[in-house]
Amino acid sequence: MPQLLEKSQLIRGVLAGERVPLARGISWIENEHEDAAELLDACYARSGNAYRIGITGPPGAGKSTLVTRLATAFRERGETVAIVAVDPTSPFSGGALLGDRVRMGELAGDRGVFIRSMATRGSLGGLAVHTAQVCDVFDAAGFTRILIETVGVGQSELEVAQTADTTAVVLVPESGDAVQAMKAGLMEIADVFVMNKSDREGAERAAHAIRSALELRAPTSGWRIPVESTVASTGQGVDTLRERLEEHLGFLRGSGDLERRRRQRLEQRLRELVRERLWAGYERRVSAEARRRALEDVLERRLTPRQAAERLANS
Amino acid sequence: MPQLLEKSQLIRGVLAGERVPLARGISWIENEHEDAAELLDACYARSGNAYRIGITGPPGAGKSTLVTRLATAFRERGETVAIVAVDPTSPFSGGALLGDRVRMGELAGDRGVFIRSMATRGSLGGLAVHTAQVCDVFDAAGFTRILIETVGVGQSELEVAQTADTTAVVLVPESGDAVQAMKAGLMEIADVFVMNKSDREGAERAAHAIRSALELRAPTSGWRIPVESTVASTGQGVDTLRERLEEHLGFLRGSGDLERRRRQRLEQRLRELVRERLWAGYERRVSAEARRRALEDVLERRLTPRQAAERLANS
Repeated sequence: MPQLLEKSQLIRGVLAGERVPLARGISWIENEHEDAAELLDACYARSGNAYRIGITGPPGAGKSTLVTRLATAFRERGETVAIVAVDPTSPFSGGALLGDRVRMGELAGDRGVFIRSMATRGSLGGLAVHTAQVCDVFDAAGFTRILIETVGVGQSELEVAQTADTTAVVLVPESGDAVQAMKAGLMEIADVFVMNKSDREGAERAAHAIRSALELRAPTSGWRIPVESTVASTGQGVDTLRERLEEHLGFLRGSGDLERRRRQRLEQRLRELVRERLWAGYERRVSAEARRRALEDVLERRLTPRQAAERLANS
Repeated sequence: MPQLLEKSQLIRGVLAGERVPLARGISWIENEHEDAAELLDACYARSGNAYRIGITGPPGAGKSTLVTRLATAFRERGETVAIVAVDPTSPFSGGALLGDRVRMGELAGDRGVFIRSMATRGSLGGLAVHTAQVCDVFDAAGFTRILIETVGVGQSELEVAQTADTTAVVLVPESGDAVQAMKAGLMEIADVFVMNKSDREGAERAAHAIRSALELRAPTSGWRIPVESTVASTGQGVDTLRERLEEHLGFLRGSGDLERRRRQRLEQRLRELVRERLWAGYERRVSAEARRRALEDVLERRLTPRQAAERLANS
């Protein structure tokens, strides 16, 4: 049984980067614990220093292994690393399946690394907000690099990846060609492409297809999106990838894009928080009974869904 | 340039199953046209007869081809078929990439089939609502089978698939084993599994892995989830799949699950509609200037995101 921590004590511990308060504090955020607000307020004021990197891509692309290797590469450069592994599909199973977290064993025991898995609870947009909040906590706790890993490339996962400063999209030769990446909306969000498992057949062709597709697009900034080849299982190419990520941070800072992006992210986050509060206000205002009656009216086709929603929202 | 249609004329045309009004009416819904409400009200009252089948699975599983074949199989049984192909990731690209719609060429010219692609605009939850609304329109227009196809298995795609009466999950031998399916939350939502491209190596093993994983779960209803093998490109197994889907409809009807599910779906949809209206009310109430000021306060760290959201939501 973990030691009970007083709120102010926990917040002090988090800001000092202590592991037990950190783990507890993040659970507060996940569970929307009543004391989370104070923790978040304290952390927000001290955040803004960490470099946040979103790592997304289809299941099976080897993201967990890559993230592990990348964390090691950052550690070798003296950075401290927090890893946030996000599984947005788990509302269906009630909890994340964390089997491949085991692979991160090689980082165990390193106190300059903190690994945390997060599953979604409640609303859709909530996951991106919770992720950003957890990153604020790691940021305030003094971690200098935060890696946000998603399990797949669904819309909510892309949103999560986009809470970061830089978004890296990991593909494998078998992910199919550039058209698939375009279909999944990945071309629009990637700052860096990674062709992982690049020792497999077709890797060069697949990387080339991505490069060609990128060249066809109108440049949207001065950053030329690189396609980095890695073999995460052996570590090949991972340090070059780390360099490329650092270069992107440099570019973001130099061009003013870092500020612009963070502003956009914050605007989006504020919007989600307002939505949540509007809904909470509605739930306080409109009784379960009134909602049940409206549903019956729709089922019996006395009202259409639109009419019922109008009535409920205005009550 | 399409002929301009008067609203009442369009609604009559839709209810008579005419193609031009149908296409136009669906665009109204997608674009949240001011006349969409009246169309939806008219259609809702007449809906509830079509059997809605959601077809989801990872990109590259051959869903488009399978849906095409399945539509043909239903046509051969005298059903009329509407296909709704949904691409939730396209907010990033501004429009769905509809290349593989071309494959549906074999259905072209058959007036008992209507194919419609939908991209998401605006809010996340909106896509599931729009899909349900478009299905209501097809339902009211007299189509007896509605196939809802998603491009991938992200959370919003699973939500879309779950607006249906039955959800079929399409995998291929390369999709990896049952663990991947569990990770993606597919075990929880599938009523029928399809192992497509089952002429490939490893298909039997992959199907077996799914069956084994299914057996480990506590049965949640009297329905035993089948795993059907198909080769969509040749049509092999597709008619058996069609039979299985019809069996599931029979099961849903007999057990009362059809009613229960539709009730749940409607409750979810009502919730989304209320959310939309709450947000619209907020946007009317709080000026862009007030929102901009709040964002500045957060950026300058005079307020935390939480405090700013609280202030905005209560104003």
